[in-house]
Parts: sequence; structure tokens; C-alpha cells
Amino acid sequence: MGKIKLDEIDHQILDMLIDNTRIPFTDIAKKLLISAGTVHVRVKKMEESGIIKGSSLMLDYKKLGYSFIAYVGVYLNNTSQTKFVLERINEIPYVTVAHITTGKFNIFCKIRARSTEHAKEVIFLLDDIEGVYRTETMISLEESINDKKRLMHSIFNDLEH
Amino acid sequence: MGKIKLDEIDHQILDMLIDNTRIPFTDIAKKLLISAGTVHVRVKKMEESGIIKGSSLMLDYKKLGYSFIAYVGVYLNNTSQTKFVLERINEIPYVTVAHITTGKFNIFCKIRARSTEHAKEVIFLLDDIEGVYRTETMISLEESINDKKRLMHSIFNDLEH
Amino acid sequence: MGKIKLDEIDHQILDMLIDNTRIPFTDIAKKLLISAGTVHVRVKKMEESGIIKGSSLMLDYKKLGYSFIAYVGVYLNNTSQTKFVLERINEIPYVTVAHITTGKFNIFCKIRARSTEHAKEVIFLLDDIEGVYRTETMISLEESINDKKRLMHSIFNDLEH
Amino acid sequence: MGKIKLDEIDHQILDMLIDNTRIPFTDIAKKLLISAGTVHVRVKKMEESGIIKGSSLMLDYKKLGYSFIAYVGVYLNNTSQTKFVLERINEIPYVTVAHITTGKFNIFCKIRARSTEHAKEVIFLLDDIEGVYRTETMISLEESINDKKRLMHSIFNDLEH
Amino acid sequence: MGKIKLDEIDHQILDMLIDNTRIPFTDIAKKLLISAGTVHVRVKKMEESGIIKGSSLMLDYKKLGYSFIAYVGVYLNNTSQTKFVLERINEIPYVTVAHITTGKFNIFCKIRARSTEHAKEVIFLLDDIEGVYRTETMISLEESINDKKRLMHSIFNDLEH
Amino acid sequence: MGKIKLDEIDHQILDMLIDNTRIPFTDIAKKLLISAGTVHVRVKKMEESGIIKGSSLMLDYKKLGYSFIAYVGVYLNNTSQTKFVLERINEIPYVTVAHITTGKFNIFCKIRARSTEHAKEVIFLLDDIEGVYRTETMISLEESINDKKRLMHSIFNDLEH
Amino acid sequence: MGKIKLDEIDHQILDMLIDNTRIPFTDIAKKLLISAGTVHVRVKKMEESGIIKGSSLMLDYKKLGYSFIAYVGVYLNNTSQTKFVLERINEIPYVTVAHITTGKFNIFCKIRARSTEHAKEVIFLLDDIEGVYRTETMISLEESINDKKRLMHSIFNDLEH
Amino acid sequence: MGKIKLDEIDHQILDMLIDNTRIPFTDIAKKLLISAGTVHVRVKKMEESGIIKGSSLMLDYKKLGYSFIAYVGVYLNNTSQTKFVLERINEIPYVTVAHITTGKFNIFCKIRARSTEHAKEVIFLLDDIEGVYRTETMISLEESINDKKRLMHSIFNDLEH
Repeated sequence: MGKIKLDEIDHQILDMLIDNTRIPFTDIAKKLLISAGTVHVRVKKMEESGIIKGSSLMLDYKKLGYSFIAYVGVYLNNTSQTKFVLERINEIPYVTVAHITTGKFNIFCKIRARSTEHAKEVIFLLDDIEGVYRTETMISLEESINDKKRLMHSIFNDLEH
Repeated sequence: MGKIKLDEIDHQILDMLIDNTRIPFTDIAKKLLISAGTVHVRVKKMEESGIIKGSSLMLDYKKLGYSFIAYVGVYLNNTSQTKFVLERINEIPYVTVAHITTGKFNIFCKIRARSTEHAKEVIFLLDDIEGVYRTETMISLEESINDKKRLMHSIFNDLEH
Repeated sequence: MGKIKLDEIDHQILDMLIDNTRIPFTDIAKKLLISAGTVHVRVKKMEESGIIKGSSLMLDYKKLGYSFIAYVGVYLNNTSQTKFVLERINEIPYVTVAHITTGKFNIFCKIRARSTEHAKEVIFLLDDIEGVYRTETMISLEESINDKKRLMHSIFNDLEH
Repeated sequence: MGKIKLDEIDHQILDMLIDNTRIPFTDIAKKLLISAGTVHVRVKKMEESGIIKGSSLMLDYKKLGYSFIAYVGVYLNNTSQTKFVLERINEIPYVTVAHITTGKFNIFCKIRARSTEHAKEVIFLLDDIEGVYRTETMISLEESINDKKRLMHSIFNDLEH
Repeated sequence: MGKIKLDEIDHQILDMLIDNTRIPFTDIAKKLLISAGTVHVRVKKMEESGIIKGSSLMLDYKKLGYSFIAYVGVYLNNTSQTKFVLERINEIPYVTVAHITTGKFNIFCKIRARSTEHAKEVIFLLDDIEGVYRTETMISLEESINDKKRLMHSIFNDLEH
Repeated sequence: MGKIKLDEIDHQILDMLIDNTRIPFTDIAKKLLISAGTVHVRVKKMEESGIIKGSSLMLDYKKLGYSFIAYVGVYLNNTSQTKFVLERINEIPYVTVAHITTGKFNIFCKIRARSTEHAKEVIFLLDDIEGVYRTETMISLEESINDKKRLMHSIFNDLEH
Repeated sequence: MGKIKLDEIDHQILDMLIDNTRIPFTDIAKKLLISAGTVHVRVKKMEESGIIKGSSLMLDYKKLGYSFIAYVGVYLNNTSQTKFVLERINEIPYVTVAHITTGKFNIFCKIRARSTEHAKEVIFLLDDIEGVYRTETMISLEESINDKKRLMHSIFNDLEH
Repeated sequence: MGKIKLDEIDHQILDMLIDNTRIPFTDIAKKLLISAGTVHVRVKKMEESGIIKGSSLMLDYKKLGYSFIAYVGVYLNNTSQTKFVLERINEIPYVTVAHITTGKFNIFCKIRARSTEHAKEVIFLLDDIEGVYRTETMISLEESINDKKRLMHSIFNDLEH
């Protein structure tokens, strides 16, 4: 706990990096009328405090042949197995997200697969983890929104005011 | 629909960018024993073909005060309203993901909020969109996996062999 | 209401036609040691009584690009609309089966589509029929059995003994 | 994968066979202004490529005393048993269709029976397969549509244009 | 509200009538070593107090062609319509039992019908009552117990001790 | 399955007995302008054919202190236990009705109890039968209809016309 | 079970104590124009009869850092374990309410926790009790009403009239 | 939002008041070896800061004739009506608790009633509030735990260490 205090300059730096992580620090500096060294120091500080955890490419999974997305709810025999099962799930690269949840599922996963056939294999991998009692799948017909940038901008606006 | 053919060099370039989008092209070039110009050309080509859609920062939402994650299933009065409702949902920055799904929900969303109180407000925003009939919420107790890098590495390994 | 009485000869004729509707009546006649005319008369009788409603090709839908199968449960606003809605459903060729059912759905359909995207369109067609309140979809990961021949053989065996 | 390319002549041949599998090839030939040999060759080709898997009679099950239709959802203890259970299900001739499905059921079957009493027996056969955890049944009150011909015509029209 | 006090004689009289309502009072009197007049007075008293509401034949519905039993859960638009809907339900003789219930249904009915086809008609009658929002049906595969005599004997035993 | 043929006289006899099983045969005879012997013969015939299975008192359970009614759905571990479990259920007099059902329950029971506390005990008796996996209870807030006489009159009217 | 008869004076005493348990008996006495000794005697009588079971502070849990409220439905393997499981649940102070219930849950609990993280731990404590099969959680977004005083006033008004 | 800091003395005072709100301050003072004035000042301070919101009697509802407890889930037509509906619910004294919840219900209530009949009336009052779409009821067979004292002691122990 101990939320990090970010000032307006930090915010503006993040605002630019969010849209393009490869923007040169000198470009950021020029726009904010500060030195590139200052940009460097502040980004470093935000990395060290853990606010910035890294950067990642946004790829088009459809073009890479991975157009099948499904959500899989996992029931465990016993929640004492949660940690163990999550470690097994983590070994399946097609599971990109997993949450411990309230409601009827113990664990809730998002998977990406190449096809219905491939999805079946991935679901069976999940089903066959020791401690998994049953799974239930909901298939995505279209990924309409997948965008954290709106949230990030909103967060920095909230912090500012 | 016309999957892009990536060769091993492309793959190795992506492999490095996935872990750090800010790595200088000269570093990539050195490791792959090719010229920085070649790296540049290939990245450009992958951007133009749409495989690389951009890059994004990975932030620690907990440290930014956004530790509350929930999945919200949305029922519509009528699927002819799907497009309209998704546009309204898109105006709520706290919704980071939205899918059209099979099963009992018409649309399935992921939200991030500051607190239970804030989550209630976001859910009410969704509930009050015209055409939304009801919503049902499942709360995340822990985000155990959120990692597309394992998938990306797997995809490139799959393509190679 | 008035079950038709079939004798053993009828049964043996059906037994052969079930496996190959194009088998020449002379072949059937030879195997059963009866005249081709008798075969013709009996098949005609079974057609006229309505037991034989016709014949149909068995095609490989996957090879024709229709590998996506789903079951869609349909809720109506009011069962007085059942007949009207079924007529609308009948206009959608991708719905190959539809039943009025007990349980939570009013109508239960089987659809075949080319892809997830196409399935979404078919489901939306169903959703948008006047009188349809909501639909719920269950996707087939594999059609493991689709075979009425075992049943037919069984029926004729049951009738005989 | 590797969808077969069908030209318009193939389509027209299938179009006629779909409605009556016993139509003589000479009749087809006459209508299409081609030789009976050509019809023969093309049907053979479509059989060899696997597009045509065979032909089947359409019988009136009600007249044969099988008016009871139900859908049975099967829960397995573990999906590793799927293949074994499907083999056991395949031994029950009253199960005419079986799918591996997403959603709450592991396997979803369609059964035809003579009566409520007989349906109970069939459901008990399913229930008692080793590895089957529970079943849930939905009964058809009326089979309103069971017709693949509309789909087949639509497929050939889609391919043509 | 004011439970009636029954003594052992009353109990023994009821015990005999339960198994055969047509047993002559003189037979009862003889067995209990009391006068037929006493039997008459006591039965009259139990009728007047409302404990005995009448008598009824136990018929074999299967032999009368009514072998189809289903339970139908009814959802209302609004519980203020409960009384009105129950009056409409009461006009359908095939509904032999109806309860206002807790849980997901507002009203829960038992119906007896001649066949699946007839059941569909009865369910549609229920569905089409004004104020009925939806119905959900569960079909009986076998009526294994329908016997209030065990309860009655138990009640009188409980009261005695 | 050999439905018994009843003529109009039979029907009129049943019609009177349904409303009062203790009506003297001489009264029936007088009303139908037949001899009491004829009434006797016909009732005997209907008893022997099994159409009339007996007669029963209609008691006021509320006045006897049994005002609590619930429906209990029973899940079995395995349907092969159905017969055994029904025998155990039959030993509990508070269960007045039990059906083998389709849908989510294996067995569906109706119970009558003295109070919430007593209902809990009865439900626990059911829960603790070997082979019972779980139970689910729905409580009656009011028994609005419990009347087979409307059905019986309707049956005889249907048969007549 | 022997409801206690309270007269109007008792009611007025309770009415005042409900709103403030620490009000001096002399104040009550003055307002009701009776002696403090009478108040004392009557309160004593109501304590001895068990109507008054004690008194309790109403604390603001949010201010104490316990703002997270959830309802947890507990499924048991077998209801014979109910008593044992309730004893284990009673050892978890964060469970403030527990009921044996009808419907899909065997036991239904209310919990108060410090945070999502803490709630997860409490839910896991419940999940891991021997005999607990599964749990299902519903989270409170706002405790809008928690007030027994309206009921108490209503009860005394009901008794009076 | 600014948790109040309580020291060990505060805790010990609360500890005693929790078990008996009517304990004289002089008794508390004696046990803690402090002056009664100090007790008074600290209780006053905790009241003013809002930690102590008041005190309440614990009554035996069963003895007062209110032995029927149920949980009622309320579905709204639209969450914009939440505030309005809660105000209407607040007018029903038999609803002692109400929460805005995640999951399938919009509002979740606890009710206490005199009997099944009375519970039905209370549920109908809820059902008939404008904006309430449906309700679903779960009945308590036994209130096994209703005790916040364990939590309070635990909280003070947590704060202390």
C-alpha cells in the first residue's frame, strides 16, 4: 500500500510512453520543455518504484493464426490446491490470463487458440490438471475492446485533479 | 485469411522486442549478426502488415490505486443493439476488455476500479446503458496470471517448426 | 397412431437401403431370393405409407468449409409466437434442426457455420427474430457421433423379435 | 483443411442428388446437357475426395414407434475419459448424435426412444457408463425442423457466387 | 390455529377409513368394540371440524390413457397477478396441483397429460395466461411414490404418543 | 397397452363416486335408472381391471398440524442406485410423492412436515440416504390447487365424446 | 412453544431500551409514570424468560477497517456433517452469521473482512473445512440497511393491537 | 478514510461493553485501574468519532413469535432505480438487512416473519415495489450463528498486535 505520488510531469511522460514505448526520450523532453536527462531520471524512478513493470508489443493474434478466444471457468476439488493448479496453468502458454474469483468458479482463465480443435486440446489440458474438478467454457465471438490505454489516461487525469 | 509468413529472423527480432520494446535496434542487430538496417526494415514490414499493432507500457495498477478487478457479464434486450452498446461501453475507461460471447451473456467485460465503491459506480454505468437488460458480476480475488509473452514465444516456436 | 406392420422381408430391404440408397433393386432381389418386382412393390408401399420419407446424401461439411457447429437455445417472449418464430427460423438455412423443448428453452436449434464470425451472424439472425427474447449458445468442439444407421438397424431388430 | 474446389456442374449434380439420391445418372445428364459418363466421373470424384460420404434413407420415426426425442447433457468425472465414454455411448443405438461441447456439459447427446419408459432406460444406460458423473435431460415436444437440404443448397449457392 | 384434539378411538376410526373409505360403520364398530352410532357421531364430528374434507377415488391414470406427468414452474411478471393467474390455472383440469413457492418459480404445478403432444398443449395453455412470463418443465419418467396413507398413519401415531 | 373401454354408464358411476366415495350404490342406481346390482357389477369390473385402485380420505393437513410443504430435488451419485434410494425414501412417511425425473434432479419428492424445524429433519433424512449426493429444496408458501376431480371429470368427458 | 405475553408497559420499556440500552431505569420510570423498581422487575422478568438475551454495541466496521462484506454459500459433501462444519465455522470470527438453508446451499454465511485479499483468506478457511465440498461467494457493494429496530418496534405494535 | 487509532485502554473498555452495554462505568474503571471519568471520556470520544454508533438489545425473536427467516434476492429492471427501491424496502420493517450485491441479484435482503403465510406477504410486498423485476427466496432452516462479538474481539486483538 503506500501509493506512489506522481506529479504532472510524470503523468505527461507516461502519457506519451503509453501510446508509443519506443519514442525517444529527447522527443519527450522537447515536448515538455525539460531535459532528456530529467525524462531519463523520472522514467528510472518509476521503474524502480515498480509503477512501470516493463513494456510489451501489441501483436495481431488473428494475423498470427490465433483467432479463437475463450474464457474457461475452473472448479477445484479444494481451494488448498489453488496455488498448485495455478502453477500447472502457468505452464500452458495459451492461457494468457488467470484469476482467483468469487462466484461459482475458483479460477477463471482466458485462452487463445488457433481453432476449435486446438481450443478443445487446451481445455482438455486444463481439465486434466490434478485437483481440477470441472471446467466450463464461454467462447468469444468477437474481441470488441482490448485497450488499457483509455484506463491509463483516465488514471493520470484522476491523479492530477 | 492470408496469414503472414515470418522467417526465423523475424521471429528472433520479435522474441527480443516482446521482452523489452525499448531495446535499441543496434543491440538486436549485434545479437543476430545482421545489420541494424535489416532489423529496421523487418520491423517496419511487420508493422505495415499489421502483425505489430504497437507497443504498450506494463504498469502496476495496484500501485496506482486500481486494485479492484471484476468481470461483468452483460445481457442485452436485443442483439441488434450490440454495436451501439459496445460504443457506449467504450466510453467507460475502466472497462479494459469487452467480448461478444456465446453462453448466457451477450457481452462480457473486464473492469478495473479503485475500490468496491468505485466498482459499484462502474457497474451502474454499464447497467444504465440503453439496451442493457441486466449485468452479473464476478470479482477477482487475485490476478494470478496476466502474461501474453508465454503465448508469443509459443507462437513463434510453433511457426518455426 | 397406427404403427405400420413390417415383415422380415421389408426389414431386410430397409437394412440394405439404409447403408446405400443407390443399391439396384436387382441386387436386393438377388440377395433376398425374391423378384426385383417384389422389392419395387414393397419399397413403393413403404414410401406410400410414409415410413420412407425420402433419401439424402451424407456430405462432409468440414470439407465444404462448414466446420463450426453450435446448439442455440431460444427463449420466446410468449409461446403463442412459437409457430411464427419457427417459420422465421426455417428461413435460415444454417439451422439444420429445431425442436420445441421442455426445460429452460422454448426452442432448441442446431446450427452449422463456416467460422466463429459466421456463427455470430447466424446467432444474431436468430436473436433478431420478432418474439425471440434471448438466445444461449453451446459450441460443439467435435461431432463425435452423427449416425442414425445404428438406430435403424436396432429398430428393425426390435420389430422382428 | 484443403477445401475441395467444386465447379457449377458439380454443384448442379449435388443439387439433384440431395433431393433424391436414387435419381438415375442419365436423368441428371439429360438435364445438365452432359453425358451420363461425366456425371458418373464427377460423383466418383466427389466420393473419393470424401465430400460425399454416402447416402441414407429418411424414415418416419414416429410411424416406426420412435416418437420420443430427448437431448441429454453428460458430465464426465474427467475429460481424459472422453474417448472411452464416447465409445460406450456409440454402443447405444438410441443415441443418434453426440458432441463434445463447451459450456456446462462435456458431451451432449440426442436420443430417440419409443416412450417415456424407454427413454428412462436409455438415460440410465448413459448414466451408468463408467466415468459419467451426471446427466441432465431436455425433452423435445416437437421436432419442428430436421432438414439439411436447405443448408446444402445454400452451401452450393455460396460457393458459386 | 386451534388444532383439533383427536383421541385414540378417533385415530383408530381414521386408520380404517384411510385404507377403505367404503368400509361399513358396523364393521368399524365391531372391531373397536363400540356402537355403530358412536362411529357415526365421531366421523360426523371430524367432518364438521373440517379434519375430514371428503373422500376420493384412487384411479389408475395410465390405464385411462394419462401416463404423462410433468412439473411446470411458472414465472409471473408480477406477484400481484398471482391470484388472477391461479384462477386461470384452475380452469385447466390437467393441472392437478399448484403451489405458490419460494425459489426461482412463482407458481409450481403438476400436470397429467395423454402424451408428449398433449403435454405441449397444456404447457402452452399455461404459457399463454396473461401475466405468465415464462414456464420451465421437468418431466416425470416414473411416478415411484404417490401415497399419503403412510403419512396419515404416521400422523396418528405421532398424536397418540 | 390395452386401455380399458368405459361406456357412459361407467362414466356416470365414476362421476358420482369421485365426489363422494361413500354414496350408497342404491342412490347411484336410482339416479341412473339402473339396478343397484348393475352398479355393483360395474364397480367390481372397474376394480378388477385396475382402473379403480381404491379410495382415500381427504384430510385437512393444516388442522392436523402439518402445514409445511416442500419439494425436494434429489441428486444421486449414480442412477444405478435409483431403486435402492426409492426404497429408502419410501420408509419416510413424510414423503408423499416421489418421481424419477428428467432435468437436473434424479428424483423429485414432495414432503409434508409440521414446521421448519421438522422439515429440516426430513430433508436431512433424505440427504443421509446412501447414494444421495445432494438435495435442493423449494418451499411451498401456499397450496393453491390440489384437486384431481377436475381432471377425472375431464377424462370421462374426453372419453365420451 | 409458549409465547411470552407482554403487556403495554413491557412494550414501552423495550421501546426505550431498544434505542439506547444504557438509558437509566429512573428515566424510563419517570416517562412511564411508574417506579424504577417496577422497571427493574419487569426487565428482570424479560431477561429470565429469555426474551431479552443481552445487549450489544453497534460499531462502525468501516471505521475499524472492516469494510468488505460478502455472503458465502457452502455446499457440504453430506448433511450429516452439518453440525461439525458449523462448529469449525464458528471458530472463524469473520463469519458473523451462518444459517442452514433450503435451496442450493447447505449453509449460508455472512463474512466481514478488511479487504479483497483478506476476504480471499477467509473464503479459503471456509473452503478448507473438512466436509465442505465447494463455496460460492456474492460480494456486497453497499450495506444499505442493517437495522433491527424497525422490526422490534413493529413487533411490539403488532402485539399491542 | 482515516481509521481511528485505538489504544489498549480503549480496546479493553470496548471489550467489556461488547458483552454487556449496561455495565456501570465504575465497574469498568475498577477493573482497568483507571478513573470512571477516564472511561467516560474515552467512550464519549469513541461515540463522537463514530466508532460506537449506539447500542441495541438482543431479543429472542422465536419467543416473540418471529421464527421464520429468509433471504430474498431482488432483481431490478434497472439499477438507476436502486436508491428508490431501497427506500421502499426500508419501509418494510420485516426486512432487517439489505445489500447492493454483485452476482445475479441487484439487492439481497434478510427478512424475519411470523410464519410461512406471513413470509409470503412480506415477499409479495417486495415483489410489488415499482422497479422490482423478480425476487428469489432462500429459506433458513436454522440460524446457527448470529454473533458479532467474536469479530469485535478479533478486531481489537488485530489492532493491538
